[in-house]
Amino acid sequence: MKIDDFNESKTARQLEDFLANKLKESGLSGYIIGLSGGIDSALSAAIAAGAVGSDKINGLIMPYSSSSGQSERDALEISKFLGMRTEKIEITPMIDTYFKKIKNIDSVRAGNKMARERMSILFDKAYEQSRLVLGTSNRTEICLGYGTWFGDVACSVNPIGMLYKTQVRALARYYNLPASIISKEPTADLWPGQTDEKELGLEYDKVDRLLYMMIEQGITVKAELNKAGFEDKLINRAVSLLNKYYFKRHLPEIANLGLKPIPDKIVLT
Amino acid sequence: MKIDDFNESKTARQLEDFLANKLKESGLSGYIIGLSGGIDSALSAAIAAGAVGSDKINGLIMPYSSSSGQSERDALEISKFLGMRTEKIEITPMIDTYFKKIKNIDSVRAGNKMARERMSILFDKAYEQSRLVLGTSNRTEICLGYGTWFGDVACSVNPIGMLYKTQVRALARYYNLPASIISKEPTADLWPGQTDEKELGLEYDKVDRLLYMMIEQGITVKAELNKAGFEDKLINRAVSLLNKYYFKRHLPEIANLGLKPIPDKIVLT
Repeated sequence: MKIDDFNESKTARQLEDFLANKLKESGLSGYIIGLSGGIDSALSAAIAAGAVGSDKINGLIMPYSSSSGQSERDALEISKFLGMRTEKIEITPMIDTYFKKIKNIDSVRAGNKMARERMSILFDKAYEQSRLVLGTSNRTEICLGYGTWFGDVACSVNPIGMLYKTQVRALARYYNLPASIISKEPTADLWPGQTDEKELGLEYDKVDRLLYMMIEQGITVKAELNKAGFEDKLINRAVSLLNKYYFKRHLPEIANLGLKPIPDKIVLT
Repeated sequence: MKIDDFNESKTARQLEDFLANKLKESGLSGYIIGLSGGIDSALSAAIAAGAVGSDKINGLIMPYSSSSGQSERDALEISKFLGMRTEKIEITPMIDTYFKKIKNIDSVRAGNKMARERMSILFDKAYEQSRLVLGTSNRTEICLGYGTWFGDVACSVNPIGMLYKTQVRALARYYNLPASIISKEPTADLWPGQTDEKELGLEYDKVDRLLYMMIEQGITVKAELNKAGFEDKLINRAVSLLNKYYFKRHLPEIANLGLKPIPDKIVLT
């Protein structure tokens, strides 16, 4: 699979098969997904709709008071396009109740609390409705640790976690998602004017190619990366994020006392 | 390591080394832990105090309105015994705000939302204070899936995740934790009179020996387990829980498209 010359229809089929199988294995009634209005959740929902039918997918729209109205309108547009039901649950009352007595809350802190609140609501509604929670983190975000551990990264199954952002865009075009969703600037919508690329200090197009070269092709010689057109600043930033946030790609570390791994399944004989 | 004839002092040293190293690696200022008043969090805190000093550990006490007053008194007793600071944050306002419009909330649902609220508060305060979140799930709970995914199971590092409940008790005695904490009946304190053993339908003493035999010794022949004194009912219940909740011992599953694993660390050359 190349970074932007990949087989959309084959990938779509693989991802739909994955979601269809996972739902079948679980014995549950469908999927639930948090719709942010962005391309990642829109694509996850589209894949799920292709896999199990849009009648088996519920969307949750969970704005905070400072969230952009455009995000909510985009989420509704996606749900209409796919023919999914949605429910809106404002997270403002819970978040504001928690932060009431705390001063000087920076945006990272607020954003993490919101991401975890949304996760806990998704799993609560999933339990209520006997559903699996659909993930929406893409591979670029996972590589760079751009997401909240036990927050937006948490889900039951994630169809797009192996897709670089560039590929998310390509697959979104394949699914004919609304052009406004595909072309809008990626944002976690934590404050007005926020964009992922400004916050990360990286452009997705460039960093995707760099990550692909380093991870999939195993090229980590700086001179070669430079030769391929990547500047030191970009390389250093990407590698520093990938190394710093390695822990978000793992379960919490448990002290090793030399015990056996716990099997997924014990078969009695 | 045998199930109840294990070397307490050696284990304590290993676990303290683990926590001392993890804190050093992180470059952060200390640990934060949710103190429930139970033996698991008490032991985790005691190990951390031995590892890095009690002045580097903060305890959070996070009761819900229906939590037993005894739990809070026990948490305070432990913090006093270890010489730790504590802070109390009631989760009632956030939980009640969320469930206000929802009817017929069963105890599993309420318990999961509370566990995830506590997790999000622990990570919020950890961020505020530049700390790591200390885990408190033991190996018996992890094997049986007795805990909330992305809730109480979530943490930065967990010193007791390799200890069966029986060993948690033995190590708690080694650390001279208050006898009342060691001997009290294990409970998630979700409703008056709840006990883990009633809810699980298993006795820790017995199930620990069974899990040890099945996992560490690899004996899964029913006739052999029967011969060792385990009844079919216990065996079936334990195996059924272990198999059912395998997913709680993993990260969310991502569709496999044949890409390379993301490395923990890229070293540029």
